[in-house]
Amino acid sequence: MLMKKLIGPLRQVLTLDQLPLKGALRDEQLEILTQAGILMEGEYIQKVGAWAELKQEFPEAELHELDGDYVALPGLVDCHTHLCFGGSRARDFALRNAGKTYLEIAAAGGGIWDTVTQTRGLDQATLAVIATQNANRLLSEGVTSIEVKSGYGLSVAEELKLLRAINQASADTAADLIPTCLAAHLCPKDWKGSSSDYLTEIADLLFPVLLAENLSTRIDAFVEKSAFSPEEITPYLKKAKQLGFDLTIHADQFSCGGSAVAVAVGARSADHLEASGEVEIQLLASSNAVAVALPGASIGLGMAFTPARKLLDQGASLAIASDWNPGSAPMGDLLAQASILATFEKLTMAEVLAGITFRAAAALGLTDRGKLTEGQLADFILFPTSDYREILYQQGKMKPEGVWKRGEKCRAKKQEPRD
Amino acid sequence: MLMKKLIGPLRQVLTLDQLPLKGALRDEQLEILTQAGILMEGEYIQKVGAWAELKQEFPEAELHELDGDYVALPGLVDCHTHLCFGGSRARDFALRNAGKTYLEIAAAGGGIWDTVTQTRGLDQATLAVIATQNANRLLSEGVTSIEVKSGYGLSVAEELKLLRAINQASADTAADLIPTCLAAHLCPKDWKGSSSDYLTEIADLLFPVLLAENLSTRIDAFVEKSAFSPEEITPYLKKAKQLGFDLTIHADQFSCGGSAVAVAVGARSADHLEASGEVEIQLLASSNAVAVALPGASIGLGMAFTPARKLLDQGASLAIASDWNPGSAPMGDLLAQASILATFEKLTMAEVLAGITFRAAAALGLTDRGKLTEGQLADFILFPTSDYREILYQQGKMKPEGVWKRGEKCRAKKQEPRD
Repeated sequence: MLMKKLIGPLRQVLTLDQLPLKGALRDEQLEILTQAGILMEGEYIQKVGAWAELKQEFPEAELHELDGDYVALPGLVDCHTHLCFGGSRARDFALRNAGKTYLEIAAAGGGIWDTVTQTRGLDQATLAVIATQNANRLLSEGVTSIEVKSGYGLSVAEELKLLRAINQASADTAADLIPTCLAAHLCPKDWKGSSSDYLTEIADLLFPVLLAENLSTRIDAFVEKSAFSPEEITPYLKKAKQLGFDLTIHADQFSCGGSAVAVAVGARSADHLEASGEVEIQLLASSNAVAVALPGASIGLGMAFTPARKLLDQGASLAIASDWNPGSAPMGDLLAQASILATFEKLTMAEVLAGITFRAAAALGLTDRGKLTEGQLADFILFPTSDYREILYQQGKMKPEGVWKRGEKCRAKKQEPRD
Repeated sequence: MLMKKLIGPLRQVLTLDQLPLKGALRDEQLEILTQAGILMEGEYIQKVGAWAELKQEFPEAELHELDGDYVALPGLVDCHTHLCFGGSRARDFALRNAGKTYLEIAAAGGGIWDTVTQTRGLDQATLAVIATQNANRLLSEGVTSIEVKSGYGLSVAEELKLLRAINQASADTAADLIPTCLAAHLCPKDWKGSSSDYLTEIADLLFPVLLAENLSTRIDAFVEKSAFSPEEITPYLKKAKQLGFDLTIHADQFSCGGSAVAVAVGARSADHLEASGEVEIQLLASSNAVAVALPGASIGLGMAFTPARKLLDQGASLAIASDWNPGSAPMGDLLAQASILATFEKLTMAEVLAGITFRAAAALGLTDRGKLTEGQLADFILFPTSDYREILYQQGKMKPEGVWKRGEKCRAKKQEPRD
C-alpha cells in the first residue's frame, strides 16, 4: 500500500485544470483554490481540495503542515535545453557583443565547434556530473522535468557518450531528464562526405542503439541555412518516425523553413520560431505541433523574441523553454526568461504558466504532469507569497521554498536513500 | 594607526584603471592583473599589485588568503533605484501583460498612485526595514553603493518620512545608500493647485529641511507628458541648484524633452532615454551629463532599450542602473539587466563594467569608488571564476562569493559590531 502525504494549508493552489492545450488564455480562466491541500499517494496526486476537508477525510496521511503563506504551482517543465556540455563560450559572448561577426568568432576558435571539441574531450562520467549540476540548479528553481539534448558529439560514438551521460544524470538528479538525440545539430566539420551521408550514418548506426539501450525516444534536427535544409532532413526524420521516435525541430530561428518540416513530419514541437512570419504562424496554429518560444536565446543573442502573442492569437499551443546552452543562451533561468518574454510579447499570466507546465509537457509528449490535478505526478513547487502574480512579477527573483518531485520533497541534490 | 589587510591571490583583478569617463571602450583597454593582491588600509585601498610582492612588502597586514580561483571587480554602483516603497504592483504587471492600457490599470486602482497610497500607509521604521532588506539583496549580489529615490510620498511631510527612512536604512545596511529627493515624480492627485504651485511648495518647504537635516544632496525630477513639462520644472531645478543640490533627471522615457533640460541645468545625469533620438544623443554626448540606461524598465515594461550603443559611439558617458521599483522595474538585478542590455545594444564587457562602476559613481558625483586603484574605497567583489568574461556571460546567474565594503568583508546583513 502506497504512503499518503498531505500538504497544506496553501494560500493558493493553481491547478491549471480545464485550461485547453491550444490558444490564448485569460487569467480569469485560472482555477485558484484557496486554503487548499494536496493529497499525494506514492508518486501521484490523489486529490487537491479544501485543506480542512482533506485533513478530516484522510487522517492516515502523513501531514506536512505549513506555516506561512504559500502558493503552489505544478512543477515547471523545461522542454528544450542543451545543458550537458563541456567548456564555456564566454569569449564568444564578449566578441559578439563587441560587434564581431559569426565568421570572425569562428576564426578566433569560437562557435559551436568549440563546444563540440570541448565536449568530446570529456568522458561520460564527467559529462554526467555537469548535466546533474545544471539540472539540480534548475530543480532548485522549480523545474522538475527537463528535456536535455545531445548534439555536441556529432558522431555515432560521441553522441552515444552524450546520451549515456544524460541518462546517467537522470538517475543522479531528482528531476526527470528527458533525453533527446540531436545528432542532426549540424554536419560536423570533420565528416568526410555530404550532409545527407552524415544523416544516413546516424540513422543507420545510432538510431538502433538508442532503441536497444533505451537512451532516447526523441529525435531533433536543426533546420537552418547553416545546418540542414528541409530536403536533406526530411528523409532522416521519416526514418526516425518509422522507428517510433517522437520528433522535434529547431525551426525558423534565423530563416524560415523548419516549421513547415515540423508540421509535415508531425513533430511534437517546433522550437525557436523567431523568424516565423504570418504563413508559418498560421501553419503551426492549424497543426498539432507545440510552438516553443526560447527567450533565453533572444536575450543571449540580443535578437527578436518569438512572436508568441501572434501564435497564441492564431490558436497555436505555446510552450516556453530556457534553451540553456553555452553558445546562445547561457543564462538558464526559465522563470526569469518566461517573465521577460511576457512583457515584450504581452502574454497573460495564464499563458506563461501554461507554457512552462502542461503545454511544455505536451511538447515532450507527456500527459502525466503539468497540472495539479488527480492522477498527475505529485510534482509541485511552493512559493513564499499569498498572490500567484508575484511569481512572474518578480521576474525570476522569487525562488520556490519547496520543490516536490514524485511525492518527495527534494533539495537540489537527490535525496539520500531512506531506511 | 589604521589596520592593513591583504587579500589574495586573485586570478584576475580588473582595476578599470585608465579607462576614460566618456565614450566607447574596447575590451583590450581593460587592465587585468593576474596573481594579484589587494592591500587595504582602513576603508581604502592602499595598493593593488602582485600578490607575492605585496605579501613581502607588507608583512604586518592581516592576511586573507584565498583558496581557489577568483576574479575581483570594483563593488558595483547602482545609480538609479526606487527601492523604498510600500506594496506591490503585481496586479498592474498582470494587467499590462494582458493588454490593458495605462488608463484601464489606473481605473482598476493601479498605477503609481497605488504605490504612493501604500507607501504613505507605512511608518518610517517599516519603510526603513523594507529599504534595508532590498539594499541587502543588492549588496549580496555585489552592489556596494546604491542610490535610492523618494518620490512615493509627494507631500512635504511624506517625502521627509521617506528620506528619513532611506537615511535610516543607510545606517542599517553595510552598503552605502545615496538618497535622492524625487518629490517631483509627478504632481500628486490630492494637490489642490497647479503643478507649478506644488513644485514651489516643495522647494520652499522641503529643500531647507533636506539641507538642515542633511537628508539628501540630490534633486531629481520626472520630465514627461504625464509628469512635469520642461517649462514647469526648470525654475524648480534652478532653485535646487542655487541651494547647492546636485541634479538628475528622468528624461526621454516615453517622449523627448527631459534630456535637453538635464543638459541646460547641468544635471549630473539624464536617466532612461529610451525615446532619445539623434538630436538628444548628440546633445548628451557633448555635455557632462552621464547617460543612464535602465534596462530593468525595458524588460519590466517590454519596451525598447536605451540607445546605449549610439550614445557611446557619439562619445557620451554611459552608466547602467536597475531602476528597481514596484511599477515598471520589479526585478532588481543589476548584473542580469546590464548583461541583457549588452546583448541587445552590443556593448563590450569594458563598457558594461564601466557603466556599473565608475561611470555610475560619476552619475552620483562620486569619485572615490568604482575603480580598484590606490586611494579608492576598498569596495570590491569576488566571483568564483578564473575569467572575468564569465560574469556577464552568465547573465546574472553567477553571484559573488565575497563582497567587501569599506575594507570589511560583509554578508548581506550588516556586520555585528566587533569587540
